[in-house]
Amino acid sequence: MITLSSDFGSPYPAAMKGVVLQQSDARLVDVAHDFPRQDVRATAFWLREVLPHFPPAVHLVVVDPGVGTDRAAVVVRAGDHALVGPDNGVLLPAARALAAGADSGGDDGDAADLDAADVEIFQIAVDDPQSSTFHGRDVFAPAAATVHEAGVDHFHEDDGFAPADSFEDLQFPTATVSDLGASGEALVVDGFGNVVTNVPGDAVAGRFGEQVRINGEPAPVRRTYAHVDPGDRLVTVGSHGNVELAVNRGRGDEAFRVDPGSRVELEY
Amino acid sequence: MITLSSDFGSPYPAAMKGVVLQQSDARLVDVAHDFPRQDVRATAFWLREVLPHFPPAVHLVVVDPGVGTDRAAVVVRAGDHALVGPDNGVLLPAARALAAGADSGGDDGDAADLDAADVEIFQIAVDDPQSSTFHGRDVFAPAAATVHEAGVDHFHEDDGFAPADSFEDLQFPTATVSDLGASGEALVVDGFGNVVTNVPGDAVAGRFGEQVRINGEPAPVRRTYAHVDPGDRLVTVGSHGNVELAVNRGRGDEAFRVDPGSRVELEY
Amino acid sequence: MITLSSDFGSPYPAAMKGVVLQQSDARLVDVAHDFPRQDVRATAFWLREVLPHFPPAVHLVVVDPGVGTDRAAVVVRAGDHALVGPDNGVLLPAARALAAGADSGGDDGDAADLDAADVEIFQIAVDDPQSSTFHGRDVFAPAAATVHEAGVDHFHEDDGFAPADSFEDLQFPTATVSDLGASGEALVVDGFGNVVTNVPGDAVAGRFGEQVRINGEPAPVRRTYAHVDPGDRLVTVGSHGNVELAVNRGRGDEAFRVDPGSRVELEY
Repeated sequence: MITLSSDFGSPYPAAMKGVVLQQSDARLVDVAHDFPRQDVRATAFWLREVLPHFPPAVHLVVVDPGVGTDRAAVVVRAGDHALVGPDNGVLLPAARALAAGADSGGDDGDAADLDAADVEIFQIAVDDPQSSTFHGRDVFAPAAATVHEAGVDHFHEDDGFAPADSFEDLQFPTATVSDLGASGEALVVDGFGNVVTNVPGDAVAGRFGEQVRINGEPAPVRRTYAHVDPGDRLVTVGSHGNVELAVNRGRGDEAFRVDPGSRVELEY
Repeated sequence: MITLSSDFGSPYPAAMKGVVLQQSDARLVDVAHDFPRQDVRATAFWLREVLPHFPPAVHLVVVDPGVGTDRAAVVVRAGDHALVGPDNGVLLPAARALAAGADSGGDDGDAADLDAADVEIFQIAVDDPQSSTFHGRDVFAPAAATVHEAGVDHFHEDDGFAPADSFEDLQFPTATVSDLGASGEALVVDGFGNVVTNVPGDAVAGRFGEQVRINGEPAPVRRTYAHVDPGDRLVTVGSHGNVELAVNRGRGDEAFRVDPGSRVELEY
Repeated sequence: MITLSSDFGSPYPAAMKGVVLQQSDARLVDVAHDFPRQDVRATAFWLREVLPHFPPAVHLVVVDPGVGTDRAAVVVRAGDHALVGPDNGVLLPAARALAAGADSGGDDGDAADLDAADVEIFQIAVDDPQSSTFHGRDVFAPAAATVHEAGVDHFHEDDGFAPADSFEDLQFPTATVSDLGASGEALVVDGFGNVVTNVPGDAVAGRFGEQVRINGEPAPVRRTYAHVDPGDRLVTVGSHGNVELAVNRGRGDEAFRVDPGSRVELEY
């Protein structure tokens, strides 16, 4: 199985699929091709949330603002999964979660020591690709197919993969939680307008039915959206295990006036 | 085969696919993930139109404004198909059509007596799901995989499915047709701007080439879009078998000034 | 394998998939369903770029402004591929490229003599389809499944396919290249805002690091986007092998003020 993730929109992902299918009969599953354009951090977040739900697979990921420059191309083995993409950090949070055997909400291994985790990183030999602007098609798709066909434990230097001496890492900022509340930030906003923060859900999980303050303004803590009236704000624990700022049948980002990167101060 | 339908956009459907693929090797086919947000009625309409074209399958449907509340989760067996989703009526019009062996245009079984039809409804036992906000991933995807693996005729209480004592139904309003015309309403607007009404196509099918009035204004009845000039309005019989209000290479909803729910008065 | 391309958005492509799956177990791969609405030329361009990356397949293509009129429905055999769709030219550029064993950047066979190429064109017998507005579902999907099941070399008149006496062709305009520059036009704009022109990449491939003028205004020639600062314009060779007008992390169409069909004058 090979999953595909990119910020390409359409129809570029189909070219990647064609290239993969020239080399492999693998099942192909799209994760998303509308990740925020060239937004490595947001894509890394969503991959960390989504990929651990998959059975062992090769995950092809192309959000690559540095395409055609001297940034490396890498394969990251994480447990019995492999991730293929540019060396810009986009693969690492998901790799940590996969290596931790994640799918466990809060315990996503984000702060784990990579050396201690079941993670190996390889550089992909890039030999005069057809284009300088579409390595998804010309570098990463063939590499993903090669890894898939060799097996996650068996690709090696003969296939053009050599252990990486160094690599770009990416870690999400950590929230501070105290008896008085929590101080964190907005990580991403989903398509519904729900704001995913980096504040662990535990910070509010014992307070359903109560009120808290978000950036100074009161908001009710509720178990789910429909526990407030349509159009009303709420603070909840999202499906990722983090505190989420939302509006029932509306957009939390607008009602709370926060964007990715905004500070989120939670007071009991 | 498992089809997937939701209003989730992206990348949430991929988490559902991962969960299903942990349990099943079924072929996965996306119906749509951009159904109008939390619009149970529009989704129910489109599923009724699209699902009868499929061979026997399990249809996973998550348009679920009541997620995390006490609304039930259900499996509806309809002939040799099964539909899995929230108990808010979204599954029922498609279930009637599937049980009627539909794919028959006008005769979609919409008004059929469910007791008499080949339809059974089961409640899904929901036992402390991981989240209160993403039952697509935590409840419905595992249930769809379970039904698929057991077989549409063989899932039962040991799998967590018990016959439902009651359920939410949903039926579309019926148009009135007379010798003078028809009185109905706009059901949905598709991505082209074509307005699908609930007026049966028979009301205009004998009148291609003639003029009728829609809400008091004249419009030609034509067999297809390109039978009027680009930018011009027409009344036609859509692929669903109902009267459709359209503009050749333009938007019918804007030209006829109707939205879902608007009255549509057709006069010969 | 059957690929699917259309301008249908959602959920209409799912009805086509259901119909195909009633007749065939083929792998289904979406190319795109958001091709510019009823834009035969843009779709033809993208198919020419994308389809040659696929292994042998049947390609179902429905961008069909003339649906329900007397335009023919055709199957084009191109090498060991087949393309199924309306007779409006949308299939021909890809057919030439596939017959040329393309995937070769500049040498896409666009100007090839079809008689000399390994291309055959058949008309599909259309016998009272269920609708006049959705031949994707009622004509082309069944035909694609039939061709797939018979084999690209073995469908014939008994299946409703007869050699076509004539057909609609479509060729892209050719740019003029000289020692002083090139004169061409913008063919399409991709989702990133990159402008694909019909000027062969060779016109600038030896000039990376230099400046040229586009429509009278200077712009640097660079190998890839990140070789200029974010927000800056560049001229590059796109993944299709043609000259592309782009902005690093921005939209080339806006910065160069060109749309599909605009003249593009390149001066050294």
